[in-house]
This record gives sequence, C-alpha cells and structure tokens, in this order.
Amino acid sequence: MLATTLHGLKDIRFTEVADPVVEAPTDAVVKVVASCICGSDLWNYRGENKIKPGMTIGHECLGVVEEVGSAVASFRPGDLVIVPFVHCDNTCPHCRAGMQSVCPNGGFTLSGQAEYARVNQADGTLYKIDGEPSPELLPSLLSLTDVMATGWHAAVSSGVRAGGTAVVVGDGAVGLCGVIAASVMGAERIIAMSRHADRQQLARAFGATHIVETRGAEGEAEVLELTDGIGADAVLECVGTGQSMETAFTVARPGATVGFVGAPHGVTLPVRQMFVRNVGLAGGMAPVRRYLPDLLPLVLDGRIEPGRVFDKTLPMSSVAEGYRAMDERTAIKVFLQP
Amino acid sequence: MLATTLHGLKDIRFTEVADPVVEAPTDAVVKVVASCICGSDLWNYRGENKIKPGMTIGHECLGVVEEVGSAVASFRPGDLVIVPFVHCDNTCPHCRAGMQSVCPNGGFTLSGQAEYARVNQADGTLYKIDGEPSPELLPSLLSLTDVMATGWHAAVSSGVRAGGTAVVVGDGAVGLCGVIAASVMGAERIIAMSRHADRQQLARAFGATHIVETRGAEGEAEVLELTDGIGADAVLECVGTGQSMETAFTVARPGATVGFVGAPHGVTLPVRQMFVRNVGLAGGMAPVRRYLPDLLPLVLDGRIEPGRVFDKTLPMSSVAEGYRAMDERTAIKVFLQP
Repeated sequence: MLATTLHGLKDIRFTEVADPVVEAPTDAVVKVVASCICGSDLWNYRGENKIKPGMTIGHECLGVVEEVGSAVASFRPGDLVIVPFVHCDNTCPHCRAGMQSVCPNGGFTLSGQAEYARVNQADGTLYKIDGEPSPELLPSLLSLTDVMATGWHAAVSSGVRAGGTAVVVGDGAVGLCGVIAASVMGAERIIAMSRHADRQQLARAFGATHIVETRGAEGEAEVLELTDGIGADAVLECVGTGQSMETAFTVARPGATVGFVGAPHGVTLPVRQMFVRNVGLAGGMAPVRRYLPDLLPLVLDGRIEPGRVFDKTLPMSSVAEGYRAMDERTAIKVFLQP
Repeated sequence: MLATTLHGLKDIRFTEVADPVVEAPTDAVVKVVASCICGSDLWNYRGENKIKPGMTIGHECLGVVEEVGSAVASFRPGDLVIVPFVHCDNTCPHCRAGMQSVCPNGGFTLSGQAEYARVNQADGTLYKIDGEPSPELLPSLLSLTDVMATGWHAAVSSGVRAGGTAVVVGDGAVGLCGVIAASVMGAERIIAMSRHADRQQLARAFGATHIVETRGAEGEAEVLELTDGIGADAVLECVGTGQSMETAFTVARPGATVGFVGAPHGVTLPVRQMFVRNVGLAGGMAPVRRYLPDLLPLVLDGRIEPGRVFDKTLPMSSVAEGYRAMDERTAIKVFLQP
C-alpha cells in the first residue's frame, strides 16, 4: 500500500510499504477514508523523538473495516468505524475503570496516514458509525479519534464544572477542542490563551468568553486579573512544555486541578508550589474509547463541530506539504483525503 | 513565658521568652493546655530547614482563650479551643472553597510547645470545644490541630471511596491517621506500609486490613500482588520523600490519585509515568479548619481515637527528651503537658 513514512529530520514521503494484515485473531484491518496530521506527529518530524528511517507515521483515521480476525465478533467488513489512536480490549480492569489508554493488551494506530491501518483488539477499540454520515461531518468524526477526545479528557481531568471558570493553555487543535469540552460541560467563563488571530476566532466560536494573548508572567497576570486574583477553577494544559505547565499551575486557584494531556517534553513539576497551594495534576494519555459514546452523538446532532480545527485539506499524496504547513504554523491541523 | 526553643542542630531548650500578645485586633492569645511534637518539627531539629537560634517551635496545641483582640467576635476568655496549626480568616474566597491552608490572611502557630500561643484571625481559625471534655479525650482532640486533619486531607485528596482499596505510605502519626480516615470513609481494603511492630499494631487497630512490611521495589510488588496486579484505587502519601513518592505512584492504579500531605523534601515527580499511567497528584498542606466540623463529633462520640498515636507523655519542661525519642524513633508521637 501507499503510506506516509518518515526517513529523517523533516523528511516525509508517501511511499509503498507492505500492507498491514490481520496478525492476531483479535485484529482488524481498516481501509482509511479520512486521516490527518497531529501536533504530536511533529515531535517525530522535528527529530525530538527518535526516528527509525522508513517508519510509518500517523495515528488518526476513520476507516471502513476491510478484514477481521477470527475472534472479532462485533465488526464485519464494510462497517464505518472510528479508530481511537490508542487501542484497548475494553474488558480488562483498567478499561472497565475508564482507563482504556492504559490497557495492557492495546497498542496504537501505526499507519493512520496510509491506505490501510491495522487495529489491535478490534472489538474493544473500534466504534461504529451507523448509517452514512454526510461528507461534511467527516472532519468532526475524524477528530474523535484523538484531538476531541483528548481535549475532553483535559476537561474531565481538570474537573470543569458548570458555572466555573476554565483556562485553556494552548491553542492547538487539542486546546481548541478543550474549549469545546469546557463549553459543553457548562463552564461559565472560558479563558483561552492564544496568540494567533485565526485560532482566537475559532476559540470564540467554540465558546471561549475571554482571550489572553500574552504568554509567561504577563499572560498569567492577565488571567489572575480576569479571575479577581483568585485563579481558575479548572485548567486544561494542552501543550506539554515546561513553560505551558508553569503557566497552568500559576493560574490555577488553590484546590484546583491542572488537567494535562500534552505528552510532557522538558517538564519539571513544581512539587513545592503544588503542596503549598494545593493545586493538583491529573490526566495523561486520553482513554479515547471511553468518551466515544458521549461524543459521537454530539457530533451527529451538530451540537459540537470539532472538525472546524481543520483549516487545510490535502490529498494524502501531498502529506509532506501538510507537515510543512503545521510545522510552520500556517495551518492549525491538516485533513488528509485518500 | 516558658517556651520550647531551638538553638542549633538538635539543641532544644525550654526557656524564658517574651509573652505573645494581641498584635492585630483579629488576634487571640491562648493558654496552652495540651501540646505535642510533630514529625515535621524534626525537619527543623535535624537542621534540614534553616535554624534561627532561639526560635520558638511547635505548632500543635489545644488552648483556653486568654485574651482576644477588639475585632474578635466569636470567642472570649475561658473558651476551650482547637488551634489549627495553619490559621485562616475562613471568609476569603480560598477559605470558602475549602482551602483554608492557602488563606492570604492566615499564618501559623509559632509557639505551640509553650505556655501561650498567639492565633491570627481568631474568629476564622479557632474551633470551640463545648463543655468540659474528659482528660482522656485530650490527646484525640489535640490530634485535630494537625495530624488527624492532615491524614484526613490525604484521604480526601486521594479520593478514597467506599468499597475501594487504599494504600497508606508512611506509618508516622499522619499515616496512622490516614488509616483512620480511609476506614471512616469506608475503604474495604486498607494496606498500611509499615516496618515497625508497634505501628503495625496501631494501624490494624485503626482499620488496616493488610500490612506490607517491605519497602522500595519489594514493597511495591507486594502491594501490586495484594491488588491483583491492578494497583490501589487511592494512595495516601504521608511521608514526603522521594522514595515514598515513588512507591505511591507505582502502587496507584491507572486513573487513581496520590493524595500527598507530607511537605516534599527531595521529591522529583515522575511526570512521564503520571502521563502514561494517568495517575494524578492532589493534596498539600491540610486546610485543617475545614475538617473540624466533621472530625470533632467523631472524636467526641468515640468513633475515632487518633489520640492513640501518642505513645509517650512528658511534661513540657522535658520537651528535649521528647524530641530525642521521636528522632530516634523510640516514640511515634510525644504528648506534652504544661
């Protein structure tokens, strides 16, 4: 099949690789019908994670089931499915406790930006989309495989509550989806920290009531002023750097929780500050499968439109152009068509 | 007055110092009727915090109100009161949100091991004990000024729930009070990590269902085995060292929270592990005043007996002997009589 592969620093190609096949009886192979590039793919693209030349890349896709293993009972070829980026059996104790991202029998989508992808534990991982959704719904449905579920996890982890104040640190696709989540959960004030006009506009469309454009100490002071010096009831940390984490802890009110979902890079947690101010930290890799029964109806009913985070669409064969656009921040998130 | 003072490394004296006085109209001065030594006093005693020679020490006391400032409305001389070690106005936004330990107008008890102590924000800080409690209740009442409320905060912060499994890391007075808290909150299995026979016995009396005697990797493996490889639903971290924190994170199940209440010394939080396993951290310095309306009735009704953590009683003039005993771990916690 044709797949997106990474060969070195910023060297993305769309090349022929071996087709994924059913390896375990619980596997499925899906034919990709929509895919995209994730902010976290850029960690690999920029060489901040180790590159294995020729490795496939991409973990977000919608697909049609092509083939299932002999133990797969709930899906059959032809089913349109959401493929959570992190796989799970959905029956182990961790899954049953809502921690599907820590399933010991799971795995990850490894060739989401390709013609086909293999899914581990298909019965537990996949989530079926009934009927035939209109094409304009595809971007929002695709966002459920990662960024919308991840933004939702940030909101859940931070304890967003109706009537409260939520701060969203980070204006990437996950942060913007965090704004959607906080809005659905009824936060009265949603402060989005964003320096880019296009993202600010989207944040407002998604429910942000305030925008803070500045960063670091200045941005933190602005949030504190907006919250009468008290700090926010909930903070969604959607970046994963030392600077964003520092801001998150500083703008959280005592007793609040920072919900973090960005894979941490260069983060040292301020344990003394956390102790003295009683600010907690919760979250991590999102248990995507857990949230799909809640999120899919919201998309199908048009109550949320997370697909609006895609501001560039390319054929998959032009995937390298998509990486460049996201790396240079000329696009928030790139939608890829087979 | 006579007060306990620290003059250098392990140099504790009971000497004459200036009487505390009402400085602000919101202050009160209490005559100490019961006091004790805290594990955290040992940080000073051992020179791990900076010593100012001649400084008074001790932050836990029960007292009788001796004098109040002109703005104190709810207390009068003669009232028997619990003096939370951390003071608060109990009216500011942080206090109203249950975070009395972060009150910007608060302060700390600075001469608890003395004849008198000054209390900031007396109306907000103090909690009256009605009637005349029997002398044998004094140790349990005294524990409410810090260790019992702190153990309770660990349990609240870690999200102990009825029917769940709680692990208590640390068998000092706070850890033992954490066992009480987990038991009152209905945890079905309470695993106390303790190497000392006397403390194990007390932990069992307080509700521990299992004791793990080993430490480090061995102790962690034992807890995981006791929890069928899943880990604990809630972990109370009641020490504050790097080793205890590492154990706490390792024995927590994915999605669980480590509730920490020991002032962190030499702790680096494992942010990557927290992310991958979705284990959170919450807690900090205990908002003592918040819990007193719940805890005082439990003590008065005899439902909890946290005073049993005191295994040595001394006259305050022998306070140096008490510090030695706790430093050498021949006593869990020393009760001091005026």
